[in-house]
Amino acid sequence: MYAETGSERLHKGRPETGCRLLADVSLPAAVVHEAPLAHNLAWMQRFADAHGARLAPHGKTTMTPSLFRHQLEAGAWGITLATAPQCRAAFAHGVTRLLMANQLVGEANMMIIADLVEAGADLYCVVDSSENVRQLGRFFAVRGLRLKVLIELGVMGGRCGCRDQDEVLALGEQILETPALVLAGLEGYEGVIASDEPQQDVRAYAWHLVEAAQALDHDGLFEAREPILTASGSAWYDLIASVFHEARLGKHFVPVLRPGCYVVHDHGLYREAQRGVLQRRPEIEQGLLPALEVFAQVQSLPEPGLAIVAMGKRDIGGDRLPMAQRRYREGGCPGRDLGVAGWEVVRLMDQHAFVRLPTHPEEAFDMRVGDMRVGDVRVGDIVAFGASHPCLTFDKWRRVLRVDDRLSVCEVMATHF
Amino acid sequence: MYAETGSERLHKGRPETGCRLLADVSLPAAVVHEAPLAHNLAWMQRFADAHGARLAPHGKTTMTPSLFRHQLEAGAWGITLATAPQCRAAFAHGVTRLLMANQLVGEANMMIIADLVEAGADLYCVVDSSENVRQLGRFFAVRGLRLKVLIELGVMGGRCGCRDQDEVLALGEQILETPALVLAGLEGYEGVIASDEPQQDVRAYAWHLVEAAQALDHDGLFEAREPILTASGSAWYDLIASVFHEARLGKHFVPVLRPGCYVVHDHGLYREAQRGVLQRRPEIEQGLLPALEVFAQVQSLPEPGLAIVAMGKRDIGGDRLPMAQRRYREGGCPGRDLGVAGWEVVRLMDQHAFVRLPTHPEEAFDMRVGDMRVGDVRVGDIVAFGASHPCLTFDKWRRVLRVDDRLSVCEVMATHF
Repeated sequence: MYAETGSERLHKGRPETGCRLLADVSLPAAVVHEAPLAHNLAWMQRFADAHGARLAPHGKTTMTPSLFRHQLEAGAWGITLATAPQCRAAFAHGVTRLLMANQLVGEANMMIIADLVEAGADLYCVVDSSENVRQLGRFFAVRGLRLKVLIELGVMGGRCGCRDQDEVLALGEQILETPALVLAGLEGYEGVIASDEPQQDVRAYAWHLVEAAQALDHDGLFEAREPILTASGSAWYDLIASVFHEARLGKHFVPVLRPGCYVVHDHGLYREAQRGVLQRRPEIEQGLLPALEVFAQVQSLPEPGLAIVAMGKRDIGGDRLPMAQRRYREGGCPGRDLGVAGWEVVRLMDQHAFVRLPTHPEEAFDMRVGDMRVGDVRVGDIVAFGASHPCLTFDKWRRVLRVDDRLSVCEVMATHF
Repeated sequence: MYAETGSERLHKGRPETGCRLLADVSLPAAVVHEAPLAHNLAWMQRFADAHGARLAPHGKTTMTPSLFRHQLEAGAWGITLATAPQCRAAFAHGVTRLLMANQLVGEANMMIIADLVEAGADLYCVVDSSENVRQLGRFFAVRGLRLKVLIELGVMGGRCGCRDQDEVLALGEQILETPALVLAGLEGYEGVIASDEPQQDVRAYAWHLVEAAQALDHDGLFEAREPILTASGSAWYDLIASVFHEARLGKHFVPVLRPGCYVVHDHGLYREAQRGVLQRRPEIEQGLLPALEVFAQVQSLPEPGLAIVAMGKRDIGGDRLPMAQRRYREGGCPGRDLGVAGWEVVRLMDQHAFVRLPTHPEEAFDMRVGDMRVGDVRVGDIVAFGASHPCLTFDKWRRVLRVDDRLSVCEVMATHF
């Protein structure tokens, strides 16, 4: 979906005069606020640095090369991706170190990756089965290339990955005997651990990763001189980082963290996960800040207590219902929030959100912002919504707008899903 | 997301020799099968014709101009759309009659529509409030243009739309006094009627639409000579068509049906809705056929009874979990379905599907297709999945592949979300 900008001057920022928020932007539009974005970029890099770990942010979250560039400029070691086409898109936009934290399956996908390796990409992908090792070995041998792979160690009841260290070592042996493959490290993902004691089990899993990596190393199965040990999604990265730090991995391994959602954070799932991080790390003063919102307009007020907003599943992630954050009159100033107290999205269709408004909003009606009553909702009012799980909002858009605190568009960022 | 085709020759179809299904296509990929597509295109046009109605298929379902062209070539009167950017995309691809079955809100969106009207589009949008009529009247007057609008009549507890005929008539009066607006008809959408007796209530609503249109006509509020009366989504179009037919609208009004999902149908929600249509219309021998699938590959078989498939919420609609339809060995022939008996998708993440396989598949293991046991699942196997609600699969893709019955790619169709 296009985030329309109406005129070219938006690409260059707006003049200082005037304050019409998101003027000339066709709504709905997805917006990334630049101050919390900058905060998050620096925050996570600092966090990784403090633990002696490299950061390879998961790029699948945004698939926005402009944000990849920001992440690399902030100090990231590389970008993590989930599929071969994602790797190609990132490489085409200047990302040269790519961690495909996923199995590479299918000849057409192998062809994409082989082309990138041939073009000079420092690229790693993941294996967890003999069959896949055979397939990759054959394909890359025919191409006369060597592919760097990480063995995945998973958990029982989880997603991909070997289920124990014996499987890991057996696969390591097989890779050693496969000339076209280079064993470059071990990979895991703790985000699929289903547990009543997640902290304890995530830490235990991180230690299993450390032990499996040390066992591979002990058996001389790593071909890379500094093998990579990598794990962590966007919820438990602090626990992974702690264990890797405690294990003093940095001496011989390259520890790599891969959170993705941190870059714009969210208003749901990851906000809650972040509370856990801050509880475990009382020394951290301020956590991540939500930076991604979808702006949309009230299109109908058909019944008392009901607003229909022109925004739906096509525009915003629907894992949970979106949450209204602020409201503005069209053509107004960004400082003038008319309020959304008591607003509740109760249903999301493809192109529409149903919002319950307070039906007896005595207090809301009495509250005033300047000369307007907060309860005075009008067709055309612009509402900023937050969502849970940013990955599923980004993928709705072909362009996302980076805006400043006056809600002027600083950059139209293309996505490459 | 790109549906990768690897080489240019795919755009021109494959040579007759050889039968490697979807060769050189990076999976996952969304695929439209051409035989059921052709069937559905003809089926719905015949249905509308038989009821003396025009067909304006809802284009938001696919946002695929190549499919719009097929729909118009099959006899459609125009294309329905939901937003101003969608209208612009359709017009840019040659659609000249556009029914925006939605309120037009926001100056940037009005600018888009004004540009289309100025460029010669025969475009209609919908109004349901005084405020919106004022906004549109002002904007189009300044542009020196006239905008054709349809009044929306909704239902209590529903989505947009006036809630009764009095509101409709009052809005009609206001439009008559608004020089920049032309009242060109009445619009409704029965898909939001929540009812224990949906058939009865949908029919009753269709009659309300007829009566409201006749009342507007009686009061001389239509400026158009042949006003439009339009309703119907993809579930209850037969009931709407019946009532419009019984009301003998064709004499003075232009009755327009707007189903969208029929073009590729589905394996869930609309398949069930279609059963209702066929029960109500026993004279129809064959209904719509599912034409849209997502092809993806098994990437890991980490535990007995579990396959992880490289396909997730980024690739296929998740209103319900996807349903495995058939399975092929990579590089094999499309006629050689290895079977998916007992396969059940139990979880969908962003890029992965968790599939439970039969754990004691005695019968499956014993069944053979040629020399292969059905129970013999391999990393790299290609699985075709069906989904519920095609709108939310199309919007995951920037390109969708039209394929023939040998699973050769006939056309790479761009989407314009």
